[in-house]
Amino acid sequence: MNHIFIYPMKVRDYECDAQGHVNNANYQHYFEVARHEFFVQYGFNFFDLTKSGLNLVVARVDIRYKTPMYGSEPFVVTIDKIEKKGVLYIFHQSVIRTTDNVLCAKAKVDVASVVNGKLSRPDFFDNALGEVMNND
Amino acid sequence: MNHIFIYPMKVRDYECDAQGHVNNANYQHYFEVARHEFFVQYGFNFFDLTKSGLNLVVARVDIRYKTPMYGSEPFVVTIDKIEKKGVLYIFHQSVIRTTDNVLCAKAKVDVASVVNGKLSRPDFFDNALGEVMNND
Amino acid sequence: MNHIFIYPMKVRDYECDAQGHVNNANYQHYFEVARHEFFVQYGFNFFDLTKSGLNLVVARVDIRYKTPMYGSEPFVVTIDKIEKKGVLYIFHQSVIRTTDNVLCAKAKVDVASVVNGKLSRPDFFDNALGEVMNND
Amino acid sequence: MNHIFIYPMKVRDYECDAQGHVNNANYQHYFEVARHEFFVQYGFNFFDLTKSGLNLVVARVDIRYKTPMYGSEPFVVTIDKIEKKGVLYIFHQSVIRTTDNVLCAKAKVDVASVVNGKLSRPDFFDNALGEVMNND
Repeated sequence: MNHIFIYPMKVRDYECDAQGHVNNANYQHYFEVARHEFFVQYGFNFFDLTKSGLNLVVARVDIRYKTPMYGSEPFVVTIDKIEKKGVLYIFHQSVIRTTDNVLCAKAKVDVASVVNGKLSRPDFFDNALGEVMNND
Repeated sequence: MNHIFIYPMKVRDYECDAQGHVNNANYQHYFEVARHEFFVQYGFNFFDLTKSGLNLVVARVDIRYKTPMYGSEPFVVTIDKIEKKGVLYIFHQSVIRTTDNVLCAKAKVDVASVVNGKLSRPDFFDNALGEVMNND
Repeated sequence: MNHIFIYPMKVRDYECDAQGHVNNANYQHYFEVARHEFFVQYGFNFFDLTKSGLNLVVARVDIRYKTPMYGSEPFVVTIDKIEKKGVLYIFHQSVIRTTDNVLCAKAKVDVASVVNGKLSRPDFFDNALGEVMNND
Repeated sequence: MNHIFIYPMKVRDYECDAQGHVNNANYQHYFEVARHEFFVQYGFNFFDLTKSGLNLVVARVDIRYKTPMYGSEPFVVTIDKIEKKGVLYIFHQSVIRTTDNVLCAKAKVDVASVVNGKLSRPDFFDNALGEVMNND
């Protein structure tokens, strides 16, 4: 598979729960971290965007858990595809364990941009991300 | 809407992120807490189940975020319906803000039961949950 | 021991780590939640305070871990004493397991109030909390 | 200051709370991650140790918060000194922001080793860590 973006991470032991593997909610953190790091590449600091009144908010997340991950395991979070659908950006993302290239989780994350409390479609995202995005 | 189960909670301030509202991943925690408390009603302690070799694992989660929640807000997490589909239990859940009854998030969570590492469909769940479950 | 404030909680399974018991960092969350709920009693909503430019910030935390807690266990977080030392409020807090009254953790938390970025000692806290505080 | 170990990290946006800066409890995570990565250097995988019945447990943590950190900021977590005191290893650690070398937090963390539920002082730690430890 081709990836638009690859971000390497490593399971932190506290992210595992009493079942011994990474708690499901933490995958959402992993996907979020990778999206924010992806935006950094295009000059967008998420934290600064928020302060300036532009919020990228998650409208929907659909995660399929394939293989559990355990303490200290290295993995990559990828962005495989970005679709545009109305005011939504739809990120297709994966978590892949590094040691054996096993797919651990797949996500489809719908992100909306909210400018000063109103849904909108800021041109500068479209312009910046244009080359990597599939239009609707 | 009728609910099978209702669990009251309250936003903890540390669950909010720099955008000022509850971080998306925490909703997954909320839904999980409510499912575990639901099982307690039927005599199943999740923590003990895990130690005994029976793991309930989330195979898929589909969450729609409707309205953000803020620090200290009270809410309920509900279980609205449980479907059975092969070895999966599909939980339909909601997060509803208490003060104005606003729907903040909806989830569909596919849970599989894994006994000693193997997918299975333990009779005692089916028996215990029988009356609240919709069969496939 | 006499407590100024008692807040009942219950271990959430995701708060346990791969060692099977509550991860140490979560105790800090528990102590924080109890302090914020304590302030609510006196009419202070932490979240609103922050938005209004008044931040209560933790300057130092000293936690002694006595007995581990496990998934789903009920407990109380207490405030046992509040001392005033210059611009600091020093909270003495405990985590006590409900089922057997065992002390699980003790904390001393130094809290400073910062108004619009400057350390200060807001009179309304002193006035409100006056009766429960030990002066320096 | 000389450091025994330096581990580079970066603030993840979800680690910030509604006050806009990193929530205090997350520093405990940072310090833990660095200790575990430190042990990896000496051939100890924390996750495997736990499964084998050897638990390193935190008996006490004393953290001084000096300067808040914000979303996406890079920092290092260091181990500055390790003392041995009876069955305890006392880790002195710091969090230092990378961009301006500002000290953000300092910690003293007392770690005990528990073998199959009993406090003990495993020789292999002492042997492995011998050269970097100050004896009591």
